[in-house]
Amino acid sequence: QIDSARLWGSIHETAQFGATAKGGVRRLTLSAEDKQVRDWFRKACEDAGLEVHVDALGSQFGLRKGRDMSKLPVGIGSHLDTQPTGGKYDGILGTLGALEVIRTLNDAGIETEAPICVVNWTNEEGSRFAPAMMASAAYVGDFTTDDILSRKDADGTTVGQALDGIGYRGDKPVGFQKLGCFVELHIEQGPILEAEGKTIGVVDSGQGVLWYDGKISGFESHAGSTPMPLRRDALATLSEIVLAMESIAKQHGPNAVGTVGEAVIANPSRNVIPGEIAFTMDCRSADGAIMDGLDRDLRAAIAEIAARRKVEVTIDLVWRKPPTHFDAKLIAAVENAAKTLGYSSRRITSGAGHDACNLNTVMPAAMVFVPCKDGISHNELEDATQPDCAAGTNVLMHTVLAIAGV
Amino acid sequence: QIDSARLWGSIHETAQFGATAKGGVRRLTLSAEDKQVRDWFRKACEDAGLEVHVDALGSQFGLRKGRDMSKLPVGIGSHLDTQPTGGKYDGILGTLGALEVIRTLNDAGIETEAPICVVNWTNEEGSRFAPAMMASAAYVGDFTTDDILSRKDADGTTVGQALDGIGYRGDKPVGFQKLGCFVELHIEQGPILEAEGKTIGVVDSGQGVLWYDGKISGFESHAGSTPMPLRRDALATLSEIVLAMESIAKQHGPNAVGTVGEAVIANPSRNVIPGEIAFTMDCRSADGAIMDGLDRDLRAAIAEIAARRKVEVTIDLVWRKPPTHFDAKLIAAVENAAKTLGYSSRRITSGAGHDACNLNTVMPAAMVFVPCKDGISHNELEDATQPDCAAGTNVLMHTVLAIAGV
Ligand SMILES: NC(=O)NCCC(=O)O
Ligand SMILES: NC(=O)NCCC(=O)O
Repeated sequence: QIDSARLWGSIHETAQFGATAKGGVRRLTLSAEDKQVRDWFRKACEDAGLEVHVDALGSQFGLRKGRDMSKLPVGIGSHLDTQPTGGKYDGILGTLGALEVIRTLNDAGIETEAPICVVNWTNEEGSRFAPAMMASAAYVGDFTTDDILSRKDADGTTVGQALDGIGYRGDKPVGFQKLGCFVELHIEQGPILEAEGKTIGVVDSGQGVLWYDGKISGFESHAGSTPMPLRRDALATLSEIVLAMESIAKQHGPNAVGTVGEAVIANPSRNVIPGEIAFTMDCRSADGAIMDGLDRDLRAAIAEIAARRKVEVTIDLVWRKPPTHFDAKLIAAVENAAKTLGYSSRRITSGAGHDACNLNTVMPAAMVFVPCKDGISHNELEDATQPDCAAGTNVLMHTVLAIAGV
Repeated sequence: QIDSARLWGSIHETAQFGATAKGGVRRLTLSAEDKQVRDWFRKACEDAGLEVHVDALGSQFGLRKGRDMSKLPVGIGSHLDTQPTGGKYDGILGTLGALEVIRTLNDAGIETEAPICVVNWTNEEGSRFAPAMMASAAYVGDFTTDDILSRKDADGTTVGQALDGIGYRGDKPVGFQKLGCFVELHIEQGPILEAEGKTIGVVDSGQGVLWYDGKISGFESHAGSTPMPLRRDALATLSEIVLAMESIAKQHGPNAVGTVGEAVIANPSRNVIPGEIAFTMDCRSADGAIMDGLDRDLRAAIAEIAARRKVEVTIDLVWRKPPTHFDAKLIAAVENAAKTLGYSSRRITSGAGHDACNLNTVMPAAMVFVPCKDGISHNELEDATQPDCAAGTNVLMHTVLAIAGV
């Protein structure tokens, strides 16, 4: 059994780095607050006897030796960055839960056969830089390190500059730390476990993701003197796109979602008809065929709206992550750990993307979910209970012990 | 006849203050660029023999003596501020045209019976600070000087601070310069004169304006894991409001317009359902009853949308300017000047608001319009021809001579 109070203490101690007035956390990747939590995490790992290294994209790896160092380590962890208005658990539970597993094994004097590696992945959230789960995507070879280093945030700062800015461009090449498998603990970020009164979600699959960058070019003109029929209004165009996205996602059934999360009017003014808007879209489904349908219907709807309103709309697909099907043996290991520990559980699909989804493309991976209050995440009000967080961490530990061998 | 080349030269010389790459002007009120053009204008007025004073809201008044100083001056002028992506003529033609009238009278050695006062009104555009035509509104007593001084821009800077920042908080109280009437020359900012091949618009009325500040409070949540039916999406709500505004304006016939010009998502992120949006609305009609109808229908539509989507929407009416009916005698004077000079003309309603509309509530006022290319304004591509600008300035001068007496 892990130390529930120590885990809870770590979560709340690190929540000070970027704490918001509403009780959430604002800790954008590679920000000053992210540096603070990284420094804290490095020291905690070293204090727990881990050998810590940082790769060229800033991901932190803390290695605990196994009896058989010819075996690849069991990877555990998640991320410590948050959304602009994020919570205290998303990613953090999985990273500090992994640290807690190490601390517990140390206290109990347990040595494992295979080594264990705790990981804090850079920019899982994808809020400051696209795509999300950027560092684990580079780790599995979906993108080159140089490509990721050149990605820019809204202010034009590159990932490389941001890494240098906080001193976290590590000296190890991406992929230096080989892993045999990866297990990630996370809050569900959805309402199912809580609604069904289950403590553990055994994650067997994850939704695929489509991310688009969009741009609308209408025509700026005077709000008072331009007759309605002559307008080429970029905001009215965006409005139709937002509502089309909503209805297309609904048409594709319960297994699809679509969101416009960002929209910025260029040079806005009360009495100017908006002429240019940059926006982003996020579409998801656990079913690849539905993803294709969302993409097709969305493009057709946008083309129709643009033509009718005589405005130009460009849509760039900047990220496509196929649905994830986790490793059957690892899923069974998680399920078995939950059962052995006496926690209620159910199989579940992840609505969110996770680093484990990337790692699953090159090694066996799995995930452990615990409930979060009202399914709320990506919100400062995100909440989870201490017993549930401890339960998830226990399941993580027992899964690791089963895989690594005692 | 005014000096067409000199007028054209002044317009293009001052267009350097805030010139944009696309050939427009970005000269927000009380900005560094606004200071540059104000300094230029003050010197030009002084060189033309005017006595220049600045009032507590930064408006510049240049007085040319008349034979009978017991008579109230004839006011002429407009504004030198622009939209964020504005043109070279909106306001500028009327202000530099007024200066050109003075220069021409000087050159011809013409003395008038009543004095003439050239005015550059502060913040006509209303883009940085609301409402538009702020200084002339205070001049006629619609707002107190202190109220206007405390208005804030998007960065929280007050009008008072901005005035001090460029050294244009004048030592004269608002209203110090009494005027007997006001005549304003302006580009039409709409397509009618050009379409009908008329040189002069004799403005007999102006649309009323409703300005609202709106705020939507939905609920931020995860774009991937929040099912469509559980969302309280602030951007989808805004989208419905934008389209409702568009259709309500159309329903009220050709004599109504409605625009959402500004909309800002708080803490936007690609994978977060927008939770909070601040936006503005601009509705207009030349008919007071239609204005009331727009207000009523808009509020009803917004209430229905908010209730259905379970989000909170607040709407504050921050400005209501009733429709304007200009002074019959001055309208006739403008019409007569156009006729005498041999220019084609027609009566016209102003779609935009103007300082003359404010002044008309306490003194006789009128306006002279000239065509602008394709009716485009509040756009860097705004354009007008040299002959049309000269024609309008000639009509302004002859109207002034008729009123002031030679
Ligand atoms: N877990 C999580 O919220 N990840 C962020 C990436 C995404 O799914 O949008
Ligand atoms: N003339 C002009 O564009 N005025 C700005 C105020 C408004 O009508 O919105």
